[in-house]
Amino acid sequence: MTAQTADFRSESDSLGAVYVPADKYWGAQTQRALRHFAIGEERLPRPLIRALGIVKHCAALSNIALGNIDPKIGQAVAAAAQDVIDGKMDEHFPLVVWQTGSGTQSNMNANEVIANLAIIRLGGVIGSKKPVHPNDHCNRGQSSNDVFPTAMHIATVEQLHHRLIPALQSLQQALTDKSVAWQDIIKIGRTHMQDATPLTLGQEFSGYAAQIQLGLDRIHDGMQRLYPLAQGGTAVGTGLNSKAGFAETFAGKVEKFTGLPFISAANKFEAQAAHDALVEISGALNTVAVSLNKIANDIRLLGSGPRTGIGELSLPANEPGSSIMPGKVNPTQCEALTMVCAQVFGNHTTITFAGAQGQLELNTYKPVIVFNVLQSIRLLADAVASFTEHCVIGIEPNRERLAELVEESLMLVTALAPHIGYDRAAKIANSALKNRRTLREEAVAGGHVSAEEFDRLVDPSLMLAPDD
Amino acid sequence: MTAQTADFRSESDSLGAVYVPADKYWGAQTQRALRHFAIGEERLPRPLIRALGIVKHCAALSNIALGNIDPKIGQAVAAAAQDVIDGKMDEHFPLVVWQTGSGTQSNMNANEVIANLAIIRLGGVIGSKKPVHPNDHCNRGQSSNDVFPTAMHIATVEQLHHRLIPALQSLQQALTDKSVAWQDIIKIGRTHMQDATPLTLGQEFSGYAAQIQLGLDRIHDGMQRLYPLAQGGTAVGTGLNSKAGFAETFAGKVEKFTGLPFISAANKFEAQAAHDALVEISGALNTVAVSLNKIANDIRLLGSGPRTGIGELSLPANEPGSSIMPGKVNPTQCEALTMVCAQVFGNHTTITFAGAQGQLELNTYKPVIVFNVLQSIRLLADAVASFTEHCVIGIEPNRERLAELVEESLMLVTALAPHIGYDRAAKIANSALKNRRTLREEAVAGGHVSAEEFDRLVDPSLMLAPDD
Amino acid sequence: MTAQTADFRSESDSLGAVYVPADKYWGAQTQRALRHFAIGEERLPRPLIRALGIVKHCAALSNIALGNIDPKIGQAVAAAAQDVIDGKMDEHFPLVVWQTGSGTQSNMNANEVIANLAIIRLGGVIGSKKPVHPNDHCNRGQSSNDVFPTAMHIATVEQLHHRLIPALQSLQQALTDKSVAWQDIIKIGRTHMQDATPLTLGQEFSGYAAQIQLGLDRIHDGMQRLYPLAQGGTAVGTGLNSKAGFAETFAGKVEKFTGLPFISAANKFEAQAAHDALVEISGALNTVAVSLNKIANDIRLLGSGPRTGIGELSLPANEPGSSIMPGKVNPTQCEALTMVCAQVFGNHTTITFAGAQGQLELNTYKPVIVFNVLQSIRLLADAVASFTEHCVIGIEPNRERLAELVEESLMLVTALAPHIGYDRAAKIANSALKNRRTLREEAVAGGHVSAEEFDRLVDPSLMLAPDD
Amino acid sequence: MTAQTADFRSESDSLGAVYVPADKYWGAQTQRALRHFAIGEERLPRPLIRALGIVKHCAALSNIALGNIDPKIGQAVAAAAQDVIDGKMDEHFPLVVWQTGSGTQSNMNANEVIANLAIIRLGGVIGSKKPVHPNDHCNRGQSSNDVFPTAMHIATVEQLHHRLIPALQSLQQALTDKSVAWQDIIKIGRTHMQDATPLTLGQEFSGYAAQIQLGLDRIHDGMQRLYPLAQGGTAVGTGLNSKAGFAETFAGKVEKFTGLPFISAANKFEAQAAHDALVEISGALNTVAVSLNKIANDIRLLGSGPRTGIGELSLPANEPGSSIMPGKVNPTQCEALTMVCAQVFGNHTTITFAGAQGQLELNTYKPVIVFNVLQSIRLLADAVASFTEHCVIGIEPNRERLAELVEESLMLVTALAPHIGYDRAAKIANSALKNRRTLREEAVAGGHVSAEEFDRLVDPSLMLAPDD
Repeated sequence: MTAQTADFRSESDSLGAVYVPADKYWGAQTQRALRHFAIGEERLPRPLIRALGIVKHCAALSNIALGNIDPKIGQAVAAAAQDVIDGKMDEHFPLVVWQTGSGTQSNMNANEVIANLAIIRLGGVIGSKKPVHPNDHCNRGQSSNDVFPTAMHIATVEQLHHRLIPALQSLQQALTDKSVAWQDIIKIGRTHMQDATPLTLGQEFSGYAAQIQLGLDRIHDGMQRLYPLAQGGTAVGTGLNSKAGFAETFAGKVEKFTGLPFISAANKFEAQAAHDALVEISGALNTVAVSLNKIANDIRLLGSGPRTGIGELSLPANEPGSSIMPGKVNPTQCEALTMVCAQVFGNHTTITFAGAQGQLELNTYKPVIVFNVLQSIRLLADAVASFTEHCVIGIEPNRERLAELVEESLMLVTALAPHIGYDRAAKIANSALKNRRTLREEAVAGGHVSAEEFDRLVDPSLMLAPDD
Repeated sequence: MTAQTADFRSESDSLGAVYVPADKYWGAQTQRALRHFAIGEERLPRPLIRALGIVKHCAALSNIALGNIDPKIGQAVAAAAQDVIDGKMDEHFPLVVWQTGSGTQSNMNANEVIANLAIIRLGGVIGSKKPVHPNDHCNRGQSSNDVFPTAMHIATVEQLHHRLIPALQSLQQALTDKSVAWQDIIKIGRTHMQDATPLTLGQEFSGYAAQIQLGLDRIHDGMQRLYPLAQGGTAVGTGLNSKAGFAETFAGKVEKFTGLPFISAANKFEAQAAHDALVEISGALNTVAVSLNKIANDIRLLGSGPRTGIGELSLPANEPGSSIMPGKVNPTQCEALTMVCAQVFGNHTTITFAGAQGQLELNTYKPVIVFNVLQSIRLLADAVASFTEHCVIGIEPNRERLAELVEESLMLVTALAPHIGYDRAAKIANSALKNRRTLREEAVAGGHVSAEEFDRLVDPSLMLAPDD
Repeated sequence: MTAQTADFRSESDSLGAVYVPADKYWGAQTQRALRHFAIGEERLPRPLIRALGIVKHCAALSNIALGNIDPKIGQAVAAAAQDVIDGKMDEHFPLVVWQTGSGTQSNMNANEVIANLAIIRLGGVIGSKKPVHPNDHCNRGQSSNDVFPTAMHIATVEQLHHRLIPALQSLQQALTDKSVAWQDIIKIGRTHMQDATPLTLGQEFSGYAAQIQLGLDRIHDGMQRLYPLAQGGTAVGTGLNSKAGFAETFAGKVEKFTGLPFISAANKFEAQAAHDALVEISGALNTVAVSLNKIANDIRLLGSGPRTGIGELSLPANEPGSSIMPGKVNPTQCEALTMVCAQVFGNHTTITFAGAQGQLELNTYKPVIVFNVLQSIRLLADAVASFTEHCVIGIEPNRERLAELVEESLMLVTALAPHIGYDRAAKIANSALKNRRTLREEAVAGGHVSAEEFDRLVDPSLMLAPDD
Repeated sequence: MTAQTADFRSESDSLGAVYVPADKYWGAQTQRALRHFAIGEERLPRPLIRALGIVKHCAALSNIALGNIDPKIGQAVAAAAQDVIDGKMDEHFPLVVWQTGSGTQSNMNANEVIANLAIIRLGGVIGSKKPVHPNDHCNRGQSSNDVFPTAMHIATVEQLHHRLIPALQSLQQALTDKSVAWQDIIKIGRTHMQDATPLTLGQEFSGYAAQIQLGLDRIHDGMQRLYPLAQGGTAVGTGLNSKAGFAETFAGKVEKFTGLPFISAANKFEAQAAHDALVEISGALNTVAVSLNKIANDIRLLGSGPRTGIGELSLPANEPGSSIMPGKVNPTQCEALTMVCAQVFGNHTTITFAGAQGQLELNTYKPVIVFNVLQSIRLLADAVASFTEHCVIGIEPNRERLAELVEESLMLVTALAPHIGYDRAAKIANSALKNRRTLREEAVAGGHVSAEEFDRLVDPSLMLAPDD
């Protein structure tokens, strides 16, 4: 070894030997992948590395339980995998998303790192593959084709459970709180961005809260098809080279490890050749983003102004809004959230395309699918948490403005329609607008109702529910 | 009225009078819409016209039940609406999708047609609005803003139940039948479009059947959020101008009429300002299309040839395949189906965009949303039925070809790996390819196993399941 | 022939005989396609039927010119094709989009109809294929694989030239007219939906006009790659069975027939196996839709009210806006146009997916690609024309409202920043908002400027351009 | 300052004081943004930071040239901006994409870093804003609303010019080289994945080369609308607070600095309120991805095997293909590239949605738009370079296999059709397939042609071009 290679060691795979940086635990296949896939900067995300660790950990324990591995080696592999789970080895996972479509190289990265860690624990020489071999032991009874999809499901479900669902629950609560607090604030409704009949600000926000609650239901339904795991199918779904019972034993161990109700997939051919369950959950995320986009846009509209917009709400002023316009405050949380929604819509297109392209026994778009699903979850979770904390909670209603706009609206005339008919009511509204008069003035002047009748019939506080 | 207008009658609305063709039942607002929305040729689809009829029918019956309309008028409205339901009035619904985003003009089209029909039945003069007024009676206790979303849900659920679900069930059955019939036909697996380990043709098709079964589950879950109906929210969700109890009475009548479990939406503000439930079901359709695209692509690949492709399957020859190449037969059902999938993917983008654009109390993309949802359902249902009947059922396996390809494959070497290790097994496969020899020749020549061991270990019929 | 088949005649193709309705000119292959592709209702659009006629017409003339067909037969084919071009045979083109992905069946539909028409003209018996054969004469020197892509380009370019471009030019002119007419109307600018510095209404509309002008440039650029035609490549791009010179002769005849600068594609392999040029033009349409969505949304926002929105513009009241709220007027043209934009976005997704799926010598998503491209063009053209005529031209500025909002805005303070610094200017704006005072009051009270200085520096009419 | 705050310094903005890490050059607004936008991990990409530096550098020089800034301060700002350009300050740009939609916080981040750098150079105290103020000097004559769009265009054009275009040119050359080298290798064509007429491997690859060349043309056309820069429009497009001539002077300096033909946008209202030019270029990237997807898929198909696929091409074996199947080699470069294509398709959806959402004087989706455009460019450039180097250049044709498949194909019968008619030719092909005979056997046996005629007419080497 020359001076120049002093910081490197030799590792080998079935294609031959490769130099690897001496301070890294990865092996030959990871190193080859670094050379052949110098594409972009998007590494496989942490939750997936963690999930690969969980797979390797639970596979080793399952092989021990089934008598399919030397327990000493199996324990060393499980312990090394725990380090991967715990995030201690993240710097040893350098590969990007843009690699083999089966994620083989990242599976091998995990196998290589875990093998070397286990070798060292067992007193061996790093890179020697003895006494722990990346394929024969760390990948025992496994194939990238079942490992990687299994990790995709585990990572996705964990992130949904631990990140997105709590964030949505908090937002749902904050919106419900506002809905209750503002249940008596009457405001003008708007349809087509035109003045309509009144409702309360609380009713308006109850609609938002309902959207988020339904979004949680959607995610819950989608997760039912993420709990089944591909592990046990090995290369093409048949389970060749795995022990009978491995799939079920493994799923049980993952369930126990994560505390989440994972099971073994009923049909492994489906679970490896297709990723419909991830396309489906992306559809749920897409729907949640649709809801959030509506809510954020509404809050931006209601907070527009302060002097020349709708101005019904005051949003928190978190930062100076403009580099040129002093004193400007902008709905920046709404903007960050709606940009995230735009990203989620696009990620969904990517996932749909990728999901549709499986061929025969394998879908080879696995890394790009899971990358986008995890990005959508992460961005939605973070943006929702930020929006809740830095915007929703601090919104204040501008009561004077709200009342003033109810007063001015012409669509209160709707309450007259059941009494004087649609056509006559329409005439009152049209001439009030044209004559710049109030509805009351116009209704009475036109002889349609008496002033007393008008006051009795056109009372916004009585326009908030069906007639008794 | 001049000679030229002899074939027209005058109708009026709150903006004034308009001439309408004498042989049409629509009124002034429909006629105005024809003039102002001469855009494209895509009329609102039949299932939606039917659903508008159901809404008007059930609303009239509900108003009667609640004492909110003269029963004689109510009955006339209900009877007229039945004609709309039955498709007798389709030529009187001339409006296109590209109109008001609330569907107001199509709601008024229904109101006008039903009013005129009812007027005639009651002995009145068409266009007179007496004794039946399009707004005051046909739209009684209603607004376009609750009528149209209600019709969107009814039409979508009916089409799912009566068209798409049966079609998918038939396909699922046909795939299952093939899976059972072919459970013993061993074939080579392919991952990355490269030779892999064997499986049976039945196992392969079981994966397809599983995909369709899961697709049915997805649709079922999505429908849970389509059963709730907006009706009763009127203009902005408050229910102004409707009778207390109208929403629930109405939903009950729709449930009875359709035999499907519709209910009244818990939050009408959500149900009118957002169409998340339709975005969600479009996501389910998108996932089903992803599954179908995979299945159709696989069948196209497996049927490629006849002489220079994979050629494992023979697809039915339904028509001459080429205008220039005599005797050519093409996988045309696969092509029709995958084109439909492409359309569904695009429709989902449209629906997602449109669903995200609601503002305040109303989403004003209703017609384009329901048009795309219904098109996706219709196309999927028809294409799946066609694919099942004209392709899947008639597929025949080419047993000789299937066997020949298993024989030639190098990846049977995988069965050796647990015995001689991954690295040595890889060497055998690599040199067999290079030396154009069989695995057996190479394995024995290389001294890795004896011929007897090879034959015992490398038996495709033992490579179809986990090891006992 | 039984009584029941009295209205049918027998036609045959290479798979055998088929009964065809006696009053239709189509033949066996079209009839088979009707049976096998009962999918949806979306027929191939008229512009494509016309284009198929142009192809057959120009191909016959080219074959005559090259001595590759009996001139009498060639002339009969050309004359029959002229009937197809003229729309006289539309009822004889019953096939839907969802057929073979090469459009073979529609090419054969054209061949069959033209053959039968020509046979009759030449005194033959319909369906006899004598003296004119659908394949040997109508398809002479052609394949569906070059005919259909050629028709796709011709139809697309014709529709762009004759429909969309004129519509966009009219809109561009209408916006420019408004921009000039309103060049002196000062209004408050809004960024982030928050009050910003002033501009003129004319400046605002000049931005819209610029967007449309750039859209026209985009379409023009995209068309450069639609002029090249695939004709002459026949089955796989080599030109087998066509005469040398056919491709160029044909393109010249199409150029002359249409008056548009079509040429023969330089690489026929690219022209048949890919439809990148149509994906590209869909990208241009997508960009135009993005522009239109912005413009329509802005006009909807500026016209919001009449009493509780921004209310700077009055849009034409084309129809009653609501079935329940009397007197309501809605921005319906904006809604129709933005729904069309949503459709175009989705169509672009479909086209992108379909365009990406070509395999080897053929892209087999031709019908769905051209269907979506033509729908996008048609809808954009019609909606733009409608929007221009029924909305833009009739928009009126509400001068009082515009002036009032300028007055109230706090962001005029920006003009002070270069003089007193950003930080002090920000303080003035913040306290004016908090104290519900005008900027002037606050600025003078705070001792930042004198009243005279304020009036000199903060003059909206001097805030409309860079400083001299 | 307590012990705990020893590593922090105080910075302030118009909302008050904030603690900032002592070793960072950013100021109060950046710090606030870190707190309020803890969303995801996607930082604004390096090319955009560089472009912000170019904007600040050229703006300072332009202000000096126009006498609008103290030259000493202006020079210090320009020099500090040069450090940003050179990448020396990247660690001081910590903000993510998910912030204000105008990019204000990143513009302020640049202003703050540059101000502090310049202050230090001029001997001032970091954070003091003296003698260099982030707004008054670094942002002089500017607004985020013109700075950020300007940086978006500069970054995009630089990356297109320096990354993507060279990569595509190399691929185009490699494909052309193969096309020339293989111009005489006859192979069977395939349409609909079914055997068709022959072409040469060189012809097939000439189609790919043509696709890439046309892609370069598309990018070139799109760039014409990226050269115009928004700078000079300031807050809403009017240019308020900038010096007359600033826009043009600035554009000239950017042109000189970058060596690329940037100009000042003709209409600044369009340039700030819309990002149509970026939507358009994303459309061009989308089309390029469509082309690449086709090419990569074809190469994957042609390289399928080695024993049970098409197997016409051998792709380079860069790495072991499977963790379980020894000796497997996969088309990994095709997979990485097609995954990138899927990402680009999704990014285009995001960009389209975001581009369509501008409101009035500003589009507030700027960061998400430029993030996706730059990601698409980077990924395409890297993946194309990798695909060219690690796949295309090393592809080898399997001549024996290619010849064998030509021999077996039935579609050579097409050459008979002009001589014996389509229908008889079809019969020969059909019965050859059924009888497992060669075309020649069947044609002669059927009495359609003599053996000599067959050999003369059916010669693949004469089926590669039109007939003379």
